[in-house]
Amino acid sequence: MLKKIDHLGIAVKDLDAVRKFYTEFLELPDAGEEEVPEQKVRVAFFPIGETKIELLEPTSPESPIAKFLESKGEGIHHVSFAVDNITEALLKLKEKGIRLIDEVPRRGAHGAKIAFIHPKASSGVLIELCEHTEHEEA
Amino acid sequence: MLKKIDHLGIAVKDLDAVRKFYTEFLELPDAGEEEVPEQKVRVAFFPIGETKIELLEPTSPESPIAKFLESKGEGIHHVSFAVDNITEALLKLKEKGIRLIDEVPRRGAHGAKIAFIHPKASSGVLIELCEHTEHEEA
Repeated sequence: MLKKIDHLGIAVKDLDAVRKFYTEFLELPDAGEEEVPEQKVRVAFFPIGETKIELLEPTSPESPIAKFLESKGEGIHHVSFAVDNITEALLKLKEKGIRLIDEVPRRGAHGAKIAFIHPKASSGVLIELCEHTEHEEA
Repeated sequence: MLKKIDHLGIAVKDLDAVRKFYTEFLELPDAGEEEVPEQKVRVAFFPIGETKIELLEPTSPESPIAKFLESKGEGIHHVSFAVDNITEALLKLKEKGIRLIDEVPRRGAHGAKIAFIHPKASSGVLIELCEHTEHEEA
């Protein structure tokens, strides 16, 4: 069902300040950034092997990332697993009784389809499923 | 400097209870478990793509994982990046002024050499560097 870790999402207060750590100090390439209005975040990607580090900075106090920063501070927010067919994967998990945040996929960065499993189902880990589409935006 | 995400470490109270989520529900293979006396933890690995999920259960109240569970609850504990030469990587980071928890590598699971970067240097993320040796224990 899961192909690989698609990315590791890290909540940060100031994306530009943290970018330096990943590019200059850990020497990862900078794959650019994007705003995701649906999540009220600005995101930047740093590829490593087959996966990516994703930094998430809130663009509004109503962003789920702003709320996370307020209650937990900066740190790892979620892990995203790539799947071939997110609708099938969600159905399968639902049939197994796994509590989901999203029963229907929504739009993530680069136009991918994403959905979250409830962290109560996965021992406190916020897990995202992610299906990249063929006609993804750059 | 970094080759890939070696593993994602998740702190859990009851490894056997959480194993089911990763094997039966997410359908990841079970790559067995090990005790790491240096860290007072029992660990289990679930490969995904080029990386692994690592579940960590404390075997003593003095384990750093027991302390993490007490203050933060279950969840993602650290991300481990594979490096070719951990001694060189630590030296390079130290020269750049990055605060380290371990300036000298210590022993992790499977006899790998590991060292942690201080989370204050990396916006709240506990980062492990990991060098796998040729003569690693199975």
